Amino acid sequence: MAKKSYFDVQKINFEGAGSTNPFAFKYYNPEEVVDGKKMKDHLRFACAYWHTMRGSLKDQFGDPTAIMPWDDGSNSVDNALKRVDVFFEFLDKCQLDFYCFHDRDIAPEGATLAESNANLDKVADKLEAMQKATGKKLLWGTANMFGNPRFMQGASTSPSASIFVHCAGQVKKAMEVTHRLGGEGYVFWGGREGYNTLLNTNMKRELDHMAAFMHMAVDYKKKIGFKGPFYIEPKPKEPTTHQYDSDAATCLNFLRAYGLTEHFKLNIETNHATLANHTMEHELAVCVDNNALGSIDANDGTPNLGWDTDCFPTDLYLTTKTMLAVLKMGGFTTGGLNFDAHRRRESFQIDDMFLSHIAGMDAFARGLKIAAAIKKDGKIDQFVADRYASWDSGIGASIEAGKESFESLEKIALSQPDPIATLKSGRQEMLESLFNSYIK
Amino acid sequence: MAKKSYFDVQKINFEGAGSTNPFAFKYYNPEEVVDGKKMKDHLRFACAYWHTMRGSLKDQFGDPTAIMPWDDGSNSVDNALKRVDVFFEFLDKCQLDFYCFHDRDIAPEGATLAESNANLDKVADKLEAMQKATGKKLLWGTANMFGNPRFMQGASTSPSASIFVHCAGQVKKAMEVTHRLGGEGYVFWGGREGYNTLLNTNMKRELDHMAAFMHMAVDYKKKIGFKGPFYIEPKPKEPTTHQYDSDAATCLNFLRAYGLTEHFKLNIETNHATLANHTMEHELAVCVDNNALGSIDANDGTPNLGWDTDCFPTDLYLTTKTMLAVLKMGGFTTGGLNFDAHRRRESFQIDDMFLSHIAGMDAFARGLKIAAAIKKDGKIDQFVADRYASWDSGIGASIEAGKESFESLEKIALSQPDPIATLKSGRQEMLESLFNSYIK
Amino acid sequence: MAKKSYFDVQKINFEGAGSTNPFAFKYYNPEEVVDGKKMKDHLRFACAYWHTMRGSLKDQFGDPTAIMPWDDGSNSVDNALKRVDVFFEFLDKCQLDFYCFHDRDIAPEGATLAESNANLDKVADKLEAMQKATGKKLLWGTANMFGNPRFMQGASTSPSASIFVHCAGQVKKAMEVTHRLGGEGYVFWGGREGYNTLLNTNMKRELDHMAAFMHMAVDYKKKIGFKGPFYIEPKPKEPTTHQYDSDAATCLNFLRAYGLTEHFKLNIETNHATLANHTMEHELAVCVDNNALGSIDANDGTPNLGWDTDCFPTDLYLTTKTMLAVLKMGGFTTGGLNFDAHRRRESFQIDDMFLSHIAGMDAFARGLKIAAAIKKDGKIDQFVADRYASWDSGIGASIEAGKESFESLEKIALSQPDPIATLKSGRQEMLESLFNSYIK
Amino acid sequence: MAKKSYFDVQKINFEGAGSTNPFAFKYYNPEEVVDGKKMKDHLRFACAYWHTMRGSLKDQFGDPTAIMPWDDGSNSVDNALKRVDVFFEFLDKCQLDFYCFHDRDIAPEGATLAESNANLDKVADKLEAMQKATGKKLLWGTANMFGNPRFMQGASTSPSASIFVHCAGQVKKAMEVTHRLGGEGYVFWGGREGYNTLLNTNMKRELDHMAAFMHMAVDYKKKIGFKGPFYIEPKPKEPTTHQYDSDAATCLNFLRAYGLTEHFKLNIETNHATLANHTMEHELAVCVDNNALGSIDANDGTPNLGWDTDCFPTDLYLTTKTMLAVLKMGGFTTGGLNFDAHRRRESFQIDDMFLSHIAGMDAFARGLKIAAAIKKDGKIDQFVADRYASWDSGIGASIEAGKESFESLEKIALSQPDPIATLKSGRQEMLESLFNSYIK
Repeated sequence: MAKKSYFDVQKINFEGAGSTNPFAFKYYNPEEVVDGKKMKDHLRFACAYWHTMRGSLKDQFGDPTAIMPWDDGSNSVDNALKRVDVFFEFLDKCQLDFYCFHDRDIAPEGATLAESNANLDKVADKLEAMQKATGKKLLWGTANMFGNPRFMQGASTSPSASIFVHCAGQVKKAMEVTHRLGGEGYVFWGGREGYNTLLNTNMKRELDHMAAFMHMAVDYKKKIGFKGPFYIEPKPKEPTTHQYDSDAATCLNFLRAYGLTEHFKLNIETNHATLANHTMEHELAVCVDNNALGSIDANDGTPNLGWDTDCFPTDLYLTTKTMLAVLKMGGFTTGGLNFDAHRRRESFQIDDMFLSHIAGMDAFARGLKIAAAIKKDGKIDQFVADRYASWDSGIGASIEAGKESFESLEKIALSQPDPIATLKSGRQEMLESLFNSYIK
Repeated sequence: MAKKSYFDVQKINFEGAGSTNPFAFKYYNPEEVVDGKKMKDHLRFACAYWHTMRGSLKDQFGDPTAIMPWDDGSNSVDNALKRVDVFFEFLDKCQLDFYCFHDRDIAPEGATLAESNANLDKVADKLEAMQKATGKKLLWGTANMFGNPRFMQGASTSPSASIFVHCAGQVKKAMEVTHRLGGEGYVFWGGREGYNTLLNTNMKRELDHMAAFMHMAVDYKKKIGFKGPFYIEPKPKEPTTHQYDSDAATCLNFLRAYGLTEHFKLNIETNHATLANHTMEHELAVCVDNNALGSIDANDGTPNLGWDTDCFPTDLYLTTKTMLAVLKMGGFTTGGLNFDAHRRRESFQIDDMFLSHIAGMDAFARGLKIAAAIKKDGKIDQFVADRYASWDSGIGASIEAGKESFESLEKIALSQPDPIATLKSGRQEMLESLFNSYIK
Repeated sequence: MAKKSYFDVQKINFEGAGSTNPFAFKYYNPEEVVDGKKMKDHLRFACAYWHTMRGSLKDQFGDPTAIMPWDDGSNSVDNALKRVDVFFEFLDKCQLDFYCFHDRDIAPEGATLAESNANLDKVADKLEAMQKATGKKLLWGTANMFGNPRFMQGASTSPSASIFVHCAGQVKKAMEVTHRLGGEGYVFWGGREGYNTLLNTNMKRELDHMAAFMHMAVDYKKKIGFKGPFYIEPKPKEPTTHQYDSDAATCLNFLRAYGLTEHFKLNIETNHATLANHTMEHELAVCVDNNALGSIDANDGTPNLGWDTDCFPTDLYLTTKTMLAVLKMGGFTTGGLNFDAHRRRESFQIDDMFLSHIAGMDAFARGLKIAAAIKKDGKIDQFVADRYASWDSGIGASIEAGKESFESLEKIALSQPDPIATLKSGRQEMLESLFNSYIK
Repeated sequence: MAKKSYFDVQKINFEGAGSTNPFAFKYYNPEEVVDGKKMKDHLRFACAYWHTMRGSLKDQFGDPTAIMPWDDGSNSVDNALKRVDVFFEFLDKCQLDFYCFHDRDIAPEGATLAESNANLDKVADKLEAMQKATGKKLLWGTANMFGNPRFMQGASTSPSASIFVHCAGQVKKAMEVTHRLGGEGYVFWGGREGYNTLLNTNMKRELDHMAAFMHMAVDYKKKIGFKGPFYIEPKPKEPTTHQYDSDAATCLNFLRAYGLTEHFKLNIETNHATLANHTMEHELAVCVDNNALGSIDANDGTPNLGWDTDCFPTDLYLTTKTMLAVLKMGGFTTGGLNFDAHRRRESFQIDDMFLSHIAGMDAFARGLKIAAAIKKDGKIDQFVADRYASWDSGIGASIEAGKESFESLEKIALSQPDPIATLKSGRQEMLESLFNSYIK
């Protein structure tokens, strides 16, 4: 083929667990059917444009290390368009079916919002063409309202109404581009929606503004016929000291308080869950129980570190528990597993782009298979069901049916023997050991 | 007087900042008027029966150290009644106007619920008499549904319906006793309402049960004419790995999800806020903004420790910020400052009971005066008001009035200059220095 | 057999990975040879007397839940002797070859030290007999100098010299009993050696006293001919706010500062490592690199919790990394894997004692096999060796040989090309994926 | 004067606590004598070149916000020279007597080390001239061996010997420049000396290399006659996952293990102490007790955040406790209080440079005065001395004198009454309240 290639690496194929080829999948076999569905349809892997194409591997203490020979370092539209070529070659070679972007990742910000919009349109033209040519799809889009200094004190929660106005214009455009590219959802991550000190902050007023912003977004979504869900992405802190979308429960509280539950689900990220001092499975369970799990930012944090390290997820406990939650809700509809992850700063070579995604994809493929085995075997589910059996009939069922009161129950309480006798061991250790037995 | 005294310590009186007497208040002057109200009416100090009378200063690694010569160590009603005498002498000598209790602190659990209820009645008789005799009041009551082994897997969220039934009987009685003693509120702290592992837990079903329990409590409250509010007390973990009432936002979400907001406010505890990785002022602000601050458990955590140390609050930043929140909401109505605190295990002498309360009361008295000075001076409030001035008129006001849309705002956004020019410094450092200037 | 049995559970046998019998080992096959040695000789599992026989599953908020029908609840020597029978039946049935104790776990404290010593001797007589009869061995002994109120302000670091004196007597006796029972080591865990506030503490003087105490112990060890090593067990906090033996590096610093390195190694506990904000593999590596890894307290913490939860270790990453460190140092000599762990408070049934140990033992057996496979394959070791190859010859070797100076190196530095070209990817993601491939 | 001014702000003068001028000191009165010495000689405030001149207020999620009209954004030597003018105007106006720098802050890195050295010399010429002209002094210098990508895998601990060689050349030069400018000390902060994963790391070999590097530095220091101390600056993590210089005890252990204690003291930073899960006063006490407190990086962390926020220190408890430690060791000799702090990203205006330093300087001036009052009053010191009185004579003194053994002490232990009777309350709450009384 005459087509220029940006990578020396060949397409990553499934070679099975016995392979020792680092540039092959040992577990991810896209067409393999697991629990009644192809792996690729369970997992719906997405590539994050920001990390993959724009992540330079700089950190707060050091300069970029990533080698990106295709990038001329300029902020030009041409450079942006060239990145699209590179990106789609990467998607193809890595067998990633979806991608996600922020507006400012894919196209450079211009001197004015109008110019930024024009830049965005030019890149969107190319993305649209590439999607058509390759079959790759947009999982979700979003607007970057945290990087530019104008957002330093908030975006929709800025003390300046003029900033809010700017954000409205920016998100309107980002929604339009997402819609045009067939995006299956649209994400809000409020990186600057929070505070650094309450000494200078009117939290109530800021939250009112954020809700007003969300309502406008809902109105506009209806107007343009965008059918995909909105996702809020919780994170408790960083860059701000306190972010309003702290965790799943806090987001649900906000949505309930402002009448927005109908239009929003959540995009749950592992490293954000752990920064909120929750486990990933907790945050997923909160969402599934509230019918609010939209999509997942698949990454992992580094134990003992207090900031978002956005590691590639390789822990099999994490990937299995994540896929158990996904299976429990019946699988993704519009959502998927977006690798909001970047390789370590020391993994600076081009081929690390592949190796890191392979690590994550194989870990999730394995997690899916383990989760499916747990589901099929049914022992853990049965244990839980048995544990609550007293609620399925008798007084338990009557309470659940709303037929009892403190007075009716007191009568029973005064006559029944000490109910401690009704308890059985929680069997945590046995269950953990049983869980291990599925990891093969 | 012929009355037996349990303490060698004399009544603690206000002697002013110049005093070097450890057994005197240097700042707490109950009748002194601050910001238009007596100190004692601002602060509404309460003493926690569990720590003061039942706290033996044991910890997970060591046996009790507290010297309590009045306590025969038995679980008898007589011993319980004697403790009431000691307690009221302490309240009097320490000038503490309120107290709080759990049912099982004040009276021993019996062999049956009926026996427990009878024990409770006997002690309540004496408490009622002592309240009348002394003018001391009950800030709130609650039921201990975490200590007995039967609650090991939850109380209202137990997998066993029979445990739920027992809890209904127990809380019904605790509410009755609280009502009879003129309690100004009633608290729910869900020490066992949570999970240790999701592997064996049906979180959704447990939360449904907890909500059903709360609704029954509301119904019964109406029935008996108890007018005081219910308070939920958030805590994220300990004793369980995850507690359902994690933080203020999570509690509000639960109340909203289950239609309970009307009947509940929150009881915010400093050390619980910090265990949830929030600041106390954050949790207070969340409550005040939602008209949900009921009462405060005044204590402090130990920096760097990950469990509830329940220290006496002596940090002037903490006490000032707490009182600023209280002043902001217009003062307590039914709530107050309950010292849910115990002296360190090394402070084992009897007189440490006094010294530790003096430390907390003086710190809060000073915090109140500093907060009142900040309020009166108005500079910080004015700074915040000015910061959001763009929302008071023009497009800001129009947005707040709900008159704008993404489309109307986009027009402005496309024509306005970069709105970064509308921002002014957040002045965090200046504000912190200004805050310091009120600490005198 | 006429022998009374305390457990309905039969002896736990190896049945292989295919077994679904919860009361069988799926991986721990004591006689199976792995990496040239029997599993049981690699793992040297020990049972902790305190958790297994004395752990009531109480916590700071709740009463004991464990069912222990053999225990009459008294503090009598008879009760203590009966526990020995129960314990050795448990060791036998669980195939645990070693055990560990504190003096006060096995025998009740008396009214005087002399009486305590006499109690200890009586129980030691029985332990000695049981060891002979069964072949079980004592991995290490220690003295409990944290539980009794007299230690509330420190043991060897107490402000009271009389407490120090008492400790000397107590440890002398505990060493004697350990020696008599053939203990392979002796542990110091300084649960009260630390402070709660620096406001009342002379840290320097306390550390001097602790060192003096350790020197006396060394002298006495020589005198009685105890050949086993002393182990210090690091923990950063809990019960005190700051414990002097915070982590491995801090302990090594103390030993170096006071000339004690020759006589001490470290006993590393997973949950203590994580409380110190380290990974277990870090603490193990610090010890192995300093030839100071003595023994291991095998347990695990609970993610997101800030206190010592002493869970049974079931995480395969943890057990594999632990065994990699053990293999790296050439295996245990006097040390072993002591389950300093207790089942959750909800796992209150008698058979949970077995299920929890099975969970831990199988997880470590599997970790051993995975670690052996990693070692045998050699890929990870080779990667690391290659990464440092520049130090094996040329200027690297010359630096390591101590032949260079800033001046000699500056000359090279001024003439060599930018040395960034000598770096290769750190390959963290690839290595994590490779690591996963050994988990089968 | 014809001299160009870069700041609209006038020189900051002391106006006293009654002043409401934000651009005045309320507490810092340089010539005022406190505890026998001028405030300025106690505090020895230094300005950090990196934050003040090179800190753009960017963060990991957002671009620079700081307004710096004097800076043309280029990497030229001319721009660097101009910054020196700005900096010295700032030092003068803020009454900061000292400053600190990294080599690459003050002068741009060139294409080669030789070029970098030449750039450094040019800027050093100007700094030397400005120091002479103004009397400002260099507290310490250091080399930035973390920013450039070549250090991504370590500096002296790099897997590449060629990187080590480069570092030797760089530090040699930085030491020379520091010496020439009369620097009173020289700092090592090992920002990249650590690891991100042990999977690819030979920790032992890396530490050996770091020690070899330090020994070369000591040799070269002697050679050039640099008399100032070397300081190691502990930090547990960030940018790496684990940094070798984790905390004070770990650094001391390293120095002891490699025979380097004679030549090194520590530079303790508040936010690094808190990231290590210690209090600042703990880290200072460890240093003072080991005669190892060299200098202090005066800043503060943000509660609940897990990264280095480098806030300006405004907490009076922090500044008082810091100055208590400094007074305890008899004051700084070569060290001082270096504001390793940057204003928040939202404090982006030029005048915030002043306001933030004023906030820190006033807080420390106040802390000094409170600490001096505590020292003068002597009550807390006396309490501590009394607490350990049993060690001043009798058996305590005999133990301290090394005259006792386990055997001699056992005799006493067997005959003395329970020594718990010798304990007195630790009085933590009373002491905290007493501490508060000095904050006026």
